[in-house]
Amino acid sequence: MDMTLWNLFEILGTGAFAASGALMGIRKRFDFFGVLMLALITAVGGGILRDGLMGNLPPLALRFPRYSLLALVTAAAVFLSPRPVQRLERLIQVLDAVGLGAFTAGGGLLAIQRGFGEPFMVVAFGLLTGVGGGILRDVLAGEPPLVFRREIYALASIAGALLLLPLNRRMGVEAALYACFALVVSLRLFCVLRGIHLPVARKG
Amino acid sequence: MDMTLWNLFEILGTGAFAASGALMGIRKRFDFFGVLMLALITAVGGGILRDGLMGNLPPLALRFPRYSLLALVTAAAVFLSPRPVQRLERLIQVLDAVGLGAFTAGGGLLAIQRGFGEPFMVVAFGLLTGVGGGILRDVLAGEPPLVFRREIYALASIAGALLLLPLNRRMGVEAALYACFALVVSLRLFCVLRGIHLPVARKG
Amino acid sequence: MDMTLWNLFEILGTGAFAASGALMGIRKRFDFFGVLMLALITAVGGGILRDGLMGNLPPLALRFPRYSLLALVTAAAVFLSPRPVQRLERLIQVLDAVGLGAFTAGGGLLAIQRGFGEPFMVVAFGLLTGVGGGILRDVLAGEPPLVFRREIYALASIAGALLLLPLNRRMGVEAALYACFALVVSLRLFCVLRGIHLPVARKG
Repeated sequence: MDMTLWNLFEILGTGAFAASGALMGIRKRFDFFGVLMLALITAVGGGILRDGLMGNLPPLALRFPRYSLLALVTAAAVFLSPRPVQRLERLIQVLDAVGLGAFTAGGGLLAIQRGFGEPFMVVAFGLLTGVGGGILRDVLAGEPPLVFRREIYALASIAGALLLLPLNRRMGVEAALYACFALVVSLRLFCVLRGIHLPVARKG
Repeated sequence: MDMTLWNLFEILGTGAFAASGALMGIRKRFDFFGVLMLALITAVGGGILRDGLMGNLPPLALRFPRYSLLALVTAAAVFLSPRPVQRLERLIQVLDAVGLGAFTAGGGLLAIQRGFGEPFMVVAFGLLTGVGGGILRDVLAGEPPLVFRREIYALASIAGALLLLPLNRRMGVEAALYACFALVVSLRLFCVLRGIHLPVARKG
Repeated sequence: MDMTLWNLFEILGTGAFAASGALMGIRKRFDFFGVLMLALITAVGGGILRDGLMGNLPPLALRFPRYSLLALVTAAAVFLSPRPVQRLERLIQVLDAVGLGAFTAGGGLLAIQRGFGEPFMVVAFGLLTGVGGGILRDVLAGEPPLVFRREIYALASIAGALLLLPLNRRMGVEAALYACFALVVSLRLFCVLRGIHLPVARKG
């Protein structure tokens, strides 16, 4: 299985997640170290939560620190010149969707491969990998988690993760990975472009 | 050992915890997904923290998703018609005490059964199972944890958990479970009815 | 290896961390139980996070509750008479640096001893042990993590942790432990005395 393209998706997604964490840290007046840490946690925090709940320890992000280092370098670059990154908001939103898709598919498939292949667990681990880092970012920044408040973000992740089990069984790992990825990314971008949101309850 | 009654306690407690998470999410203007997630984390988050610190992985809430699904269904119902639930505040407080008792007893006993039977660990795992979900709810909602601020809530859990070890040794699992449960619930409800609080320090 | 002196450092550091957690809880109007819990989590939370990510479960702080009990006793004393402790601010800052040094060195060395001796992991586990408790304290208190915002705190921990691997290989465990400790404490105190901070980004 040729993973070059897949690695590219993971790299783009890691960079986008790290950039969103770094921008949040800058907005909150964190110092250089704080910005780096928030970016790191945003980028690899979902995978760390997933590995923690899987008992896959130490987490991959510590054992194979490539993506952690990428997140730190990205954060340093954003810290040094945040303005151009902020101007690329639309591009970052696209790359963020790529990250959501790649992390969801990778996390869900890891669950299957480690023997946690019940549907509920596959979806839970895919979702946690996809949105966990952003939740940690928001909690550490003192913000209500964005994923609980706005737009079709987590639902895109869940919809994609639901594809993993049946496709993996019938068409193999690679097809499952890319189909899940494609569904998450396209659902997410479709809802961003159309401004589609979930309803909020009447305030009780 | 007949666990039918016990399962009923767990079901009632899970529903009450989920309802408190859902109401918090509605108050914070979370969307439908956010309300469901906050309810889920409130209901099973304590058990997930406990399983994480026990190395009991993946957590029971993922491996046996019955209670997770119950929490999600409860949350959806609360989301669709929050007003009646809010009017039942007193009932929810009683059911919440049932949940505190059932989760404390279940968590502490699981510690004993998995060989973590030192008194400090039994109490810690009982307490964490009982109050961990509520703490996660408050952190995710951006509120100071209620359990750190008000009333005899955690102390009731600790008092009950202290019964588990001696009763389990002398009278067996079932007696320990129900005695712990009964002490937690009655202490908690007594303090709710009487409005008994812990002291707060003079502000330094 | 004579660990008497080392235990003294750990005791002083645990007390200082617990005191900082207790003072925060008092400031936030937590009740007696909340103050105790926040102090406990501040003192042993970093080690619990480390053990969780190492798969060293249940965490040492639960299996050997000496330090947890020390934190609880410290917190009770601070709760009963916070004013004298607040007046000793400078002393607490010194003891806090002792704790940062001892926890960093102990956490990093534990990583090496458990076979997680890659440089990135040693530094990550040392840093997490040193600053994790303070981050949990701030998140639970609803504050942005102090370590992300001010002064050379985490950097001192990282610098010290970088010494552990080479010194452990060439000069043995004890030398590595004390050299790491000494570097962290002196860097931290130097920056406190001189008021040295990290830069904050231009607000984008």
